[in-house]
Formats: sequence, structure tokens, C-alpha cells
Amino acid sequence: MRALVFKNKLHYQTDYPIPRPQHDEALIRVTHAGICNTDFEIIKGYMGFQGVLGHEFVGVVERCNEKHLVGKRVVGEINLGCGACSYCQNQMQSHCPNRSVLGILNKDGVFAEYITLPVRNLHLIPDSISDEEAALVEPLAAAFEITHQVDIEPHDKVCVLGDGKLGILVGQVLSITGCNLVVVGNHKRKLSILQGRGIETKVRPAFKEREFDLVIDCTGSPSGIETALKIIRPRGRIILKTTIAKREIVDLNRVVVNELTLIGSRCGPFPPAIKAIETGEVDLYPLISSRFPLEDGIKAFKYAFKKDALKVILKIA
Amino acid sequence: MRALVFKNKLHYQTDYPIPRPQHDEALIRVTHAGICNTDFEIIKGYMGFQGVLGHEFVGVVERCNEKHLVGKRVVGEINLGCGACSYCQNQMQSHCPNRSVLGILNKDGVFAEYITLPVRNLHLIPDSISDEEAALVEPLAAAFEITHQVDIEPHDKVCVLGDGKLGILVGQVLSITGCNLVVVGNHKRKLSILQGRGIETKVRPAFKEREFDLVIDCTGSPSGIETALKIIRPRGRIILKTTIAKREIVDLNRVVVNELTLIGSRCGPFPPAIKAIETGEVDLYPLISSRFPLEDGIKAFKYAFKKDALKVILKIA
Repeated sequence: MRALVFKNKLHYQTDYPIPRPQHDEALIRVTHAGICNTDFEIIKGYMGFQGVLGHEFVGVVERCNEKHLVGKRVVGEINLGCGACSYCQNQMQSHCPNRSVLGILNKDGVFAEYITLPVRNLHLIPDSISDEEAALVEPLAAAFEITHQVDIEPHDKVCVLGDGKLGILVGQVLSITGCNLVVVGNHKRKLSILQGRGIETKVRPAFKEREFDLVIDCTGSPSGIETALKIIRPRGRIILKTTIAKREIVDLNRVVVNELTLIGSRCGPFPPAIKAIETGEVDLYPLISSRFPLEDGIKAFKYAFKKDALKVILKIA
Repeated sequence: MRALVFKNKLHYQTDYPIPRPQHDEALIRVTHAGICNTDFEIIKGYMGFQGVLGHEFVGVVERCNEKHLVGKRVVGEINLGCGACSYCQNQMQSHCPNRSVLGILNKDGVFAEYITLPVRNLHLIPDSISDEEAALVEPLAAAFEITHQVDIEPHDKVCVLGDGKLGILVGQVLSITGCNLVVVGNHKRKLSILQGRGIETKVRPAFKEREFDLVIDCTGSPSGIETALKIIRPRGRIILKTTIAKREIVDLNRVVVNELTLIGSRCGPFPPAIKAIETGEVDLYPLISSRFPLEDGIKAFKYAFKKDALKVILKIA
């Protein structure tokens, strides 16, 4: 099959073997996939992964023991737990110590004509959601993880740092809570997506200290946590949303003296993400910068990591 | 009056001026005080403080507009808020941006014959509590801050890192919750204080990864957070209890990928600390390594920061 494979560098192949589903898995024909910053980090060496890249997708079930799924349009959660450990048995398969992760850890990803995934990872996509929207359910779910982890009240002053793909998604999701929200970034054009939805934005503002009850770091840069520690109020909460290759210097005294709470946040729940697309509470189209066919995958990667780009979609079928 | 004053170095003076109480303050004759690691950090330059050192004390109210307090034995909270800001008005004067802090920031401390403190900072000490115990209410309250910040369930696996004064206090306070507790340190003799109260302890153990639901870092050393990040389970909580002069390198990827929560913790509530001494739920005597009169204060400091020492009490009156 056709696939975009990372082996020391990125290759486009036409002869990659079609994966064989395990007894609990479905074989899925991928139709659309999204390129994520994590894919870029992997190319730089993160996780030491080699194989088919990609974990954001929508596809059609081609073969499966649960016959009612065959022919259905699905998206899929990316963590494959062992099913037996205490994490898996407590709805935390994303933290299973023996997990594999689609396109990230010990499991070929979605930049290919076919993938396999356990049936329990799949979510049906209603007809009212387009393929391109569905391909973005996974990163949108990661944004919803925040509202799953912390209570956000309408009177909370909340700052999202970063106007990349994740910052734009997080901004839209947090605006649903009705909180007192501002999204901060470097790119007027990207921020205008949020302004169009009535969300306050600022370009490189000079913040006062102690201004916010909650800060979400979506910068993907070491400066993010430093800014967050300055603008958060005592006893405030900082959500760390992005992984970066290098270790960072953090002023832990500030965390202690101001009794701050730092919360790491990763993959999130799919059902609220699917629902928010259906109801129109979020709008994913302005995030899509460009579309490429799979065979132009290497060109698509180059495009995706230009400064001005947001989401790039690979059209696979 | 006699006082132990830090001005670039530590001095014992006999001619320091007696402080004058503001209208909302009491004049207190200090009888006993405790030496804390923060005092040592200040001598090394922390906070840039100059003046009378010390913030752990018990004393007798000598003069005060609230006449019923005169002659009463009291301890005192160390943060003096402005009284007007939103923090002060929401019971968070320890986070007032304009606060002064007894013996730490813009307010002479307790290693002296007299101090002044606002009446709202004072707590009466019942007769059943000795002066030496009362002098340790402040650090005990800091240990109680943890149970104030996080819920601890009996089935939680909890690890306290550090067997200094704070580690021993935190160990005793957390054992009240009935959780599955172990305190880890380097000094058999110090840990034996906890063993005597039925608390499990370990000397430099080789922990498995992901073993604990909650880890409290009381090491006062940069290695503390590193160990905590290794032994905490995914979605576990780490409490940071000590301030250190230098900034630290923290593996934030681990925080994100394992969705950890890091919580800074500082000063705590006095009433549960006073009550726990009264009921015997904690035992402070084994923590007291030695007593010195105020005039031997410099000698007392030298003694207090030997490796084997725990709490040193200054007898002032």
C-alpha cells in the first residue's frame, strides 16, 4: 500500500505491507489525516519512533469481527492499552505502561491507505460532520482534556498562551465555558480565527503579574512556562499542554511561594469533541491551511512547518 | 533589647530598639523561638532580608488594645497582609502582594526579647501545650497545609521524601489520614522518630517507577523533584514543600505525558496544628535536638546546621 514512512528520514513508499488486524481490531481504510507537531518532533528524534507516521485520521471500517461496524466512518483514540493492568481497567488506557501509540510508539500510524485499531478505540462519525472535520477530532479531544481535568468558572480569568493549532483549538473549547478568556500569540492572522468567533486575543502583550486564575501553555516553547509563572496569580493553575524535546529550567521557588498548581495534559475524550463539531460550538475549517494528496506527503510536511501554516490535511482515499 | 540580627552577617546585640506596636498590633514578649532552614537560607542571601531573624515563636502579650489578650500566651501567623486587597479579604493574607513576613520580609523577627504582630495573626495557646511545643506550631502548620490543599484517602500510597525537620513533621501529619505512608531519608536516627510512632520509613530505597499516588518533596534539594517525577504514578500528585535558592531543571515532558499535578505548598493553618499537639496526634519533643539561650544564638546557628541536628530552640525569657 501507499504510506509515508519515517526511517531516519521521511520516505514515500508504494509497497508498504497492508497491516493485519488482531482479533479485537478493525482494518480501516484511511481517507483523511492531519499533520501534527508531534509528527515533526518525531522526525527530530522524539520517542525514537520508526514506521508509518501520523495519528489524526478519519476512515472507513473495511473488515471487523463486529459486523455492524463494516462500512462505517470512524475516528480512533490513539493509545492502545494492554487491557489487563490497573490503568486499562480504570479507563486510563492512555497511561497503560505497556501501551503502544498510533504512529508514535510501536504501532504504525495513519499516513497510509490502511491501519488497524482495536474496536474499543473507535468512535462513529455522524453524517453531519465532514471528513476534514473528523480528521481533527483527535487534536480537538486533546483540547477538551483541559475541561475534563479542571473546573473552569465563568468568573475565572483565563489566558491561553500560543496561537498554533493547539492554541486555536484550546481557545475555542475554553470559550464554551463562558470564562473571561484571552488568547495570546504572535500571529495576527491566526488570532483572527478566534476574533471571528468573539474571543479576545492579544499580540505579544505586556501583562501585569498575577493577572490570571488559569494559564494554558500551548506555546511549544520553553518561554511558555516562564511567562505562565509570571502572569498567574497566587494559588492559580497552569496547564502544560505541549511536550518539547529538551528539559527546562523552572523557577520552582515561585511554584512553592505562590502555591501554584501545574497540571500536565495530554490526550482527551473523543465524545465531547465530536459533539462540539456537530453543534457548531467549534469551527475547524479556518484551521485548515492546505490539503495534499498522500503521494505529496513530503511536500506537505515542508509546507506544514512553515511559520504561517496551521493544519495540513493529507487526502489519502 | 537583646536580639539576633542579620546585617550581612549574624550579630548578637543587646541594644536593639524595642519595636513599637501599630494600633492593630500587640507587643509580645518572646519566650521561646525555633531555628528554621529558611533562617539559614536568608543568611545565604535568600529574600535579601536584613534585621532580626526568626519566625517560629511563642510569647506573652505585654501590651495590646484588646485588653483580654494581655498576659496571654500566644503564637502568631507570620504573614502580615495589607488588609485591603482581594487576597486579604479572601482569607489569603499569606499571598497579599504587599505583605511583610515576620523575620523574612520587611518585618523584624522573633530572635529578640520583643516583637509586634497584628492581633488578627495571634492564636492562644492552651495550658496543656508547653512553650517548646508551642514554638513549633508554625512549622507544624506548614505541614498541615498539605491536608488543606489535597484530599488524601486511606488507600492512597504516599511517599514523603526527606527526613529533615519538615519531613518528620509532614510524616506525622500525613499519618493522621490513615494513608499508606512511607517516609524516605538518609538518616536512620531521624527516621527512628517516625518508626517509634508506627510510621514506615526507608533509608535510600530503590523505588520502582510509578509506585506512588502522592509524593511530598521535603528534601530541600534539587534531587527531590527528580526522584518524585520517577516514582509518581501517571495522574499522580507531587507536593513541593521547600524553597531552594537556585532554579531547577525539571523534565516537564514527564509532567505532560503522565498528566501529573505539581502543587506548591507554603504556610499553613494554625488551628489544626494546635489541636494535634493537644490531642497527642503529633509528638514534637523528639524533634528538639538542643536548647540555647539567646545570647548563645550564633553558637546555636552553628549547631542547628550540622547534618545530624533537627530543631534547635532559643530560650529568650
